[in-house]
Amino acid sequence: MLFATRTRAFAADMRDLSRMLADLSGLAKTQVAQLVEALASGDRDIAREVVREGDAIDSMQRTIDARVVETTAKRQPTAVGLREALGILGIANELERIGDLAKDIGKPLQTIDKDELTPGATLGLRQMASAVLDQLRDVLDSLVRRDVNMASAVWARDERIDRLCAQLSRELIGRMTEDPGALTLGIDLLFCTKNLERIGDHATNIAEAIYYIVEGRRLSGERPKADVTRIVLE
Amino acid sequence: MLFATRTRAFAADMRDLSRMLADLSGLAKTQVAQLVEALASGDRDIAREVVREGDAIDSMQRTIDARVVETTAKRQPTAVGLREALGILGIANELERIGDLAKDIGKPLQTIDKDELTPGATLGLRQMASAVLDQLRDVLDSLVRRDVNMASAVWARDERIDRLCAQLSRELIGRMTEDPGALTLGIDLLFCTKNLERIGDHATNIAEAIYYIVEGRRLSGERPKADVTRIVLE
Repeated sequence: MLFATRTRAFAADMRDLSRMLADLSGLAKTQVAQLVEALASGDRDIAREVVREGDAIDSMQRTIDARVVETTAKRQPTAVGLREALGILGIANELERIGDLAKDIGKPLQTIDKDELTPGATLGLRQMASAVLDQLRDVLDSLVRRDVNMASAVWARDERIDRLCAQLSRELIGRMTEDPGALTLGIDLLFCTKNLERIGDHATNIAEAIYYIVEGRRLSGERPKADVTRIVLE
Repeated sequence: MLFATRTRAFAADMRDLSRMLADLSGLAKTQVAQLVEALASGDRDIAREVVREGDAIDSMQRTIDARVVETTAKRQPTAVGLREALGILGIANELERIGDLAKDIGKPLQTIDKDELTPGATLGLRQMASAVLDQLRDVLDSLVRRDVNMASAVWARDERIDRLCAQLSRELIGRMTEDPGALTLGIDLLFCTKNLERIGDHATNIAEAIYYIVEGRRLSGERPKADVTRIVLE
């Protein structure tokens, strides 16, 4: 009877945790969607909002973290339950890192004047940010649906973001070569590009975590990955 | 009696896990020490070795991860034991990310000719890599000794790395402004600099995890942090 009570209590805790993770997912998605908007419109107020939102994400991640430890210690779940609880812990951690990166991208956007950007850079940044947002949305949908095929598709599609990143980096470096006066702006944008790529990487980490929760084993094989540094700089 | 057996078995598992974490720490320290050497000597073979070592780190982190899940599910530890097990999981994760970043730094160093670097850049990179290695060594020592004061000192000292990063970034950007032909090299080195800074950040994350394991609560307050982007680019 004690075991059954514990199991029921654990199930209730997991439902709470799933809800909290859904809220955290919503915050991270909104933040990246606003990045896309800030890049499209050049609206610095939106960039400032992206930076501010980082704190809410941090605090929610910490709450989830503490709750996972508490419920795991109290309810002593089975191996499957534990895998699920640790999966939530890992995904919350990835979302927190996405929030940090979005903040890092938002910071320079608070001061950049949109008119300074070439049409190619503006287009490339928007395309890349949109592709990253799509990946994040899809992986978080696959989490809600526990759809490992959808999660695996996100994982495999990361290569596209690597290619967009390489293309945009080339564009930015080309511009910096032509106009040394655009150097610091170009470097700011190169770091934004790299940070967008990193958000994409965290989306694929979430895909791996979903696969692990549902299937109980790791997504095997090396992820298809374009080696951006070499594409850009060789 | 069952409880006592479980507790003993958990203690034995935790000793194994501590040993595995010490091995993983050793790998990560060696990798960063080799980075310092590669930067000091310009020896591309060492850079190649740094890149190769990433795989061993990944595989050991996965082993620790699986073992933590297994032992936690089987032994049903108390809240304190669980905190310790999850702390090991978190630290192994941070070490894996350090390994990835070291690999990212090693990659361009495989092809860069040391003679192309200005004395200022060479010195700055060495200083920064050494400072990061010191932080990593100290935080891993504080882990073995469970010394929260030492861990807190590492955490507080990260600001120094941020300042070295800002200084070196300025040096590199200055050089790129003077000589647009040095642009792609400069960008490669700027990313190395940023990745070294990130390794430092992961060392402070490990410090936070140690504090949490030992004290059972979070290191409070915002970490003193120089805002590098603004220092460099404003």
